[in-house]
Amino acid sequence: MHDLLADLAAANQILADQGVVDAFGHVSVRHPQHPDRFLLARNMAPSQVRPQDILQFAFDGTPLDAGDRRVYLERFIHGAIYRARPDVMSVVHSHSPAVVPFSIARGARLRPVCHMSGFLGAGAPLFEIRDAAGAGSDLLVRDDRLGTALADSLGGANFVLMRGHGSTTVAPSLKLAVYRAVYAEVNARMQMQAQQLGDPEFLTAQEAVSAMESTEGQVERPWALWKAAAQSRRSA
Amino acid sequence: MHDLLADLAAANQILADQGVVDAFGHVSVRHPQHPDRFLLARNMAPSQVRPQDILQFAFDGTPLDAGDRRVYLERFIHGAIYRARPDVMSVVHSHSPAVVPFSIARGARLRPVCHMSGFLGAGAPLFEIRDAAGAGSDLLVRDDRLGTALADSLGGANFVLMRGHGSTTVAPSLKLAVYRAVYAEVNARMQMQAQQLGDPEFLTAQEAVSAMESTEGQVERPWALWKAAAQSRRSA
Amino acid sequence: MHDLLADLAAANQILADQGVVDAFGHVSVRHPQHPDRFLLARNMAPSQVRPQDILQFAFDGTPLDAGDRRVYLERFIHGAIYRARPDVMSVVHSHSPAVVPFSIARGARLRPVCHMSGFLGAGAPLFEIRDAAGAGSDLLVRDDRLGTALADSLGGANFVLMRGHGSTTVAPSLKLAVYRAVYAEVNARMQMQAQQLGDPEFLTAQEAVSAMESTEGQVERPWALWKAAAQSRRSA
Amino acid sequence: MHDLLADLAAANQILADQGVVDAFGHVSVRHPQHPDRFLLARNMAPSQVRPQDILQFAFDGTPLDAGDRRVYLERFIHGAIYRARPDVMSVVHSHSPAVVPFSIARGARLRPVCHMSGFLGAGAPLFEIRDAAGAGSDLLVRDDRLGTALADSLGGANFVLMRGHGSTTVAPSLKLAVYRAVYAEVNARMQMQAQQLGDPEFLTAQEAVSAMESTEGQVERPWALWKAAAQSRRSA
Repeated sequence: MHDLLADLAAANQILADQGVVDAFGHVSVRHPQHPDRFLLARNMAPSQVRPQDILQFAFDGTPLDAGDRRVYLERFIHGAIYRARPDVMSVVHSHSPAVVPFSIARGARLRPVCHMSGFLGAGAPLFEIRDAAGAGSDLLVRDDRLGTALADSLGGANFVLMRGHGSTTVAPSLKLAVYRAVYAEVNARMQMQAQQLGDPEFLTAQEAVSAMESTEGQVERPWALWKAAAQSRRSA
Repeated sequence: MHDLLADLAAANQILADQGVVDAFGHVSVRHPQHPDRFLLARNMAPSQVRPQDILQFAFDGTPLDAGDRRVYLERFIHGAIYRARPDVMSVVHSHSPAVVPFSIARGARLRPVCHMSGFLGAGAPLFEIRDAAGAGSDLLVRDDRLGTALADSLGGANFVLMRGHGSTTVAPSLKLAVYRAVYAEVNARMQMQAQQLGDPEFLTAQEAVSAMESTEGQVERPWALWKAAAQSRRSA
Repeated sequence: MHDLLADLAAANQILADQGVVDAFGHVSVRHPQHPDRFLLARNMAPSQVRPQDILQFAFDGTPLDAGDRRVYLERFIHGAIYRARPDVMSVVHSHSPAVVPFSIARGARLRPVCHMSGFLGAGAPLFEIRDAAGAGSDLLVRDDRLGTALADSLGGANFVLMRGHGSTTVAPSLKLAVYRAVYAEVNARMQMQAQQLGDPEFLTAQEAVSAMESTEGQVERPWALWKAAAQSRRSA
Repeated sequence: MHDLLADLAAANQILADQGVVDAFGHVSVRHPQHPDRFLLARNMAPSQVRPQDILQFAFDGTPLDAGDRRVYLERFIHGAIYRARPDVMSVVHSHSPAVVPFSIARGARLRPVCHMSGFLGAGAPLFEIRDAAGAGSDLLVRDDRLGTALADSLGGANFVLMRGHGSTTVAPSLKLAVYRAVYAEVNARMQMQAQQLGDPEFLTAQEAVSAMESTEGQVERPWALWKAAAQSRRSA
């Protein structure tokens, strides 16, 4: 448990250092002993999260040990997905800059253009919050009902775009969730540029599956590099 | 007052560190005891402003305690807006790089594409200085008459584009003016990219209002993060 | 030999510091005493390679002194090229961000647009791995047969695009391979932007040859600068 | 003279720190006592130039005090311009990344889009080296004849694009030459983006002149900021 909290704090710092999150965005992990709970930092900037800032939550978003500490408004994203997807062990929500335009442009589709982002082969559906919250919401997933609607949009995919807002990435481990959040951003940048050069050749469905299996087996390598980079820049 | 001067110095450093201002650009705040005055640094690069560099000005741009210190040529931007808009407590003027193209391209409109920039829902009008200064000016707001023309263009909005020059952002607090100047730049980058991918889905008027209320209530979080980042890079 | 290992470690760090490789990508050099072997780091992030991490390989990818150290899956890229091209002394494989879109967009051609990238005048053919591995591969060059197919695509050129994956650069020396990998990325960025502004004027075949000879004779200057920069940032 | 050499070394470091030059590019100044000579560093990366690295040259490119130190191949750019333009006191030659695409795309014209780059109002002609050197050159200005052809293309302007190569900027002082080289790059980025958003509104001829006079009178402010930034990053 001690190691998992340290890893979750490191995941926060990595996502900030890699430009996936800024003052906003969050990453959670399913509780290893209590699969009906998840671990998520208190309301704070990701780059500053330490192990002692991490709280436990029920799937409906109820904080279990927060005391008087403030919690994230959008914790419902995480709970609703853990409830709907027993295979998901970790969730990242972010506003990473190259992904957001794909949530805004009508008809745009984020698809895997390289071997590092095979996880997008399972789809990158769009969550249009107007369908659940009407045309006057603040776009935030601020209750369990909206979290459930988001989980419905996600379906069996690994990634869901949130219109005018950002995206949410899921994975079978914390390190893979971080990896996928970083490479979704890389894929978005490359796809945008490729589309300006010509008609993109996307990965086939089977290429996406094969590439995902191969590259994700290497996840320890980027994790170690990113962790060292984040810590080095923090202490610089 | 001591705290406000420290915050205004920090705002200068944050805007420089976040890439909103370079050697040029400035941020002011309405005087807390004298609502007919405003506080603005002497003529210098924003990243180097300290509390003792901050001066008082009347709305017509007259420096009240500058002594022999040089003042910004474009201080009239600030005074004219404080006069026209009693609700405005802080003003940022910048040439931030993704916003300027929206001031140049004929017919381009900067509009809110994500929940962080709901403040753009009140409009982002264009100030064409030729209408007030003719076709041969230096584009600078160098007197109270031009400041007043700019304030007229701003009207009741939170943001005004200045053709071939930059933009000016206003807010009911210093921290929100900094927040809006940063996220106007973020919105501009995202909107530009979204428009290359397809027809953007903008926020509805009500979504913009709702999102503004929600996200701007969180302003302490980015402020604290940006302030720490600016100070860390200064001492690196 | 000691100097060559130090230079190969430096090459790894330079490529990471210049943004050509991230956690993935690798650079090799032909063995100076045994021209049928090559030197390549063990499986690790390039930025962290030290001289003692460098191993020897046969052209078929067999590690000769790895012991229990893990090796790169795609070492076959290097071996197959050294076998096919006796003139090649060094090989860089990367996923550098502006080059990958040229491997994705159908019909896009990377061509020399400036004097620094004359080496592209000999062509930048596309390796479509589907032709050799079918439509369901993981896109990786994971055996000697695929390495040989890649070397066939490369032919007599200095650079080969790998569809949905990245590129491989070859050169008559380690320093030139690093130089070409960096400037292929620079050329890709400039070409992409030029194509948005109008129809590009590419270098003529003879300009490319002449420019390559002139600029590559200056390779010590960027090498020294990049090496100092990489070391300075590592120790910061 | 001591101060001028220090300023010229600082100019080299600023241009590198601001991303205008990399391992290549150079900046010179006319000799203050001998107006028929100019001062330019020996052959080295700009970021590493110190006062003792600066040499004297005649207008035909002959080094006057180099001893056994190597000199830049393209020193003829500088000499030919000083000969043709008595008003020019400083020259910057660079390959800055957003400017080069304007030298490549047929029919593209770099024009002033904002008040910081009024100096472009006097034109940004294109030097097509094929007109002087034929279609097989290495694109380098490697003798006095080509330097003279470049100076002819420049004419009375402040800036000349060099096809497939870069640009050269001139000014009545060293600090202004640095300023113009930095803001030519800024203008190029903004113009490129504006053209993707719509038809740009360029500065009128008179606006360009007026804006140039106003903003260039402030040159000490960016110079001091850039110098401090370059020195801070060197010692970090």
